[in-house]
Amino acid sequence: MKLQEAIANIKLPDAEAMQSAAARIDKLTKPKGSLGVLEDIAVRLAGIQRRAHPVIGDKRVVVCVGDHGIVQEKVSAFSTDTTKLMVINFLKGGAGINVLSRTVGANVVVADIGMAADFSHPGLINLKIKKGTDNFIYGPAMSREEAVAAVEAGILLAEKQIKEGATLLAAGDMGIGNTTACSAVLAALTGVDPKEITGRGSGIDERALAKKIALITKALTVNKPNAADGLDVLAKVGGLEIGAMAGLFIGGAALGVPVVIDGFIAATAALLADKIAPLCRHYMFASHLSAEPGHQKIMEILKLTPVLQLNMRLGEGTGAVLAFPLLEAAANILNEMATFEELTN
Amino acid sequence: MKLQEAIANIKLPDAEAMQSAAARIDKLTKPKGSLGVLEDIAVRLAGIQRRAHPVIGDKRVVVCVGDHGIVQEKVSAFSTDTTKLMVINFLKGGAGINVLSRTVGANVVVADIGMAADFSHPGLINLKIKKGTDNFIYGPAMSREEAVAAVEAGILLAEKQIKEGATLLAAGDMGIGNTTACSAVLAALTGVDPKEITGRGSGIDERALAKKIALITKALTVNKPNAADGLDVLAKVGGLEIGAMAGLFIGGAALGVPVVIDGFIAATAALLADKIAPLCRHYMFASHLSAEPGHQKIMEILKLTPVLQLNMRLGEGTGAVLAFPLLEAAANILNEMATFEELTN
Repeated sequence: MKLQEAIANIKLPDAEAMQSAAARIDKLTKPKGSLGVLEDIAVRLAGIQRRAHPVIGDKRVVVCVGDHGIVQEKVSAFSTDTTKLMVINFLKGGAGINVLSRTVGANVVVADIGMAADFSHPGLINLKIKKGTDNFIYGPAMSREEAVAAVEAGILLAEKQIKEGATLLAAGDMGIGNTTACSAVLAALTGVDPKEITGRGSGIDERALAKKIALITKALTVNKPNAADGLDVLAKVGGLEIGAMAGLFIGGAALGVPVVIDGFIAATAALLADKIAPLCRHYMFASHLSAEPGHQKIMEILKLTPVLQLNMRLGEGTGAVLAFPLLEAAANILNEMATFEELTN
Repeated sequence: MKLQEAIANIKLPDAEAMQSAAARIDKLTKPKGSLGVLEDIAVRLAGIQRRAHPVIGDKRVVVCVGDHGIVQEKVSAFSTDTTKLMVINFLKGGAGINVLSRTVGANVVVADIGMAADFSHPGLINLKIKKGTDNFIYGPAMSREEAVAAVEAGILLAEKQIKEGATLLAAGDMGIGNTTACSAVLAALTGVDPKEITGRGSGIDERALAKKIALITKALTVNKPNAADGLDVLAKVGGLEIGAMAGLFIGGAALGVPVVIDGFIAATAALLADKIAPLCRHYMFASHLSAEPGHQKIMEILKLTPVLQLNMRLGEGTGAVLAFPLLEAAANILNEMATFEELTN
């Protein structure tokens, strides 16, 4: 699916299925409203799957990998070499996302969208657009064509997973330097001062944080991204994996499959996706609230409420997969809980 | 195990195992501290299981059932008959706790500690002490001997589950009227005005809420529970299932097994348990933050932080079992994640 086709395919969730689900929930053997947010999730899942009894089966997290030219400026506690090392870790099954996915019965898919290193492996989906973005303090991170290609790589990834049977997706990230890009994207989209939405990423000190903010401010001055044009913002100060993650949200929405947001990186991708394809947010679920200050801001804009408070900041999709059992629980309530009428008959 | 024996058996978690777990966590393939609260949970589990690599296997929620004399005053939107109806629902597998437990791979155990109805079933553990508490606006809810028996029923339940292989427990409740009892217990233990810690339970209106608060105030005046004596507070304004849940926390702690707190009822039982057996809190984990106003207060006293924000208020252990995958994830991190050293060798 090309981007324009995907955007055109996104419909509002089905109102009738949502009403039907909500009506059933109020007849279940519990005080009205007592399952709180799980009830809202159940109704939304019904709308997304366009049936009163939504079913969650195959669950997958897609980890999108990309490197960042801005890392030349030492904005991260880690170097670009770490990106490749972590990809190897993902493929061996020893990373955080592997462990948490196994815990909740989800599969991990890893895709190279723009890793700097030359590396291929049968377990790694190769959708590499280029070897990392350009350093955006001197000019755009990538061309507009590359930005579209990154988003379409994400749409393709969503299509492939859903064709193979996925009923629930999460967008995960790996890319040293990507909190810098995401703070720049968020500042560009919202006009908020980078100071308020730039955090310590994988763990930098006060001095490095001040430098990170200054670099973001410079990048915005140099590139002048157009806040009304998500693809322009992505191209100028975004990242290749961030574009693909935005594409995952768009592809999921186009094909009627919910996509769970992880932390700050995935949330930024979700915000970009919603800018590019406005109905897209109806297919998104929040998971945890990360330690990065920009995350809360995005949740407010998308009107989504994280359900987990774990103070995590690892990325990879780790927070998102931990929300999978909650979405399953919500669907199961609709399918398996007795009504008072059923119980007394 | 008698109560005094259980109290004597509770040790502080093992400091060496905790240090060893914490040291390993800092070597794992992730930025330091980036798994947030999951890291704290992992370290606590190591201390509780007294080994650097804690393992979560068999998981169970024990739903303790009891009725309340105060329901004569119409403090609830439901009647005492509902308690029996819900027990039948639990045994048939159609209640919220059954559905959520199946979702996370946990077993449901149901025990009658003080149901008003005459009802027996092979699937229901009969530890009935009496047919509901007495109406505590006229005198104590139960005698001190009955309070001790209720707590010891909970200790017995913990012992039985652990003997059968349980590695993780949760305390669930069923008892129409029990938010009234719990607000009274919390007010008695803390001296806080009942107004601040009394909520709408299963869903009462403004007028019924005012009456509920007045009844609690009256109960405290009539019974004069001794804040320093958990068993006195339990006997005078508590409940039979609340006592058993306190016993579950004490029994779990005595046998070195973590017990997850559900919502306001379980939290009140946890606070009573900690008053009766002070080291007990080291074996408790918070799950969700419920919609009842007293819940947050108890979390502050016990210095526990709920990880789920779902605005639930169903009880039965429903919020607690949703935290099971998070505890499993925490243990799995210690056992399955690679260190940077392992990855590069």
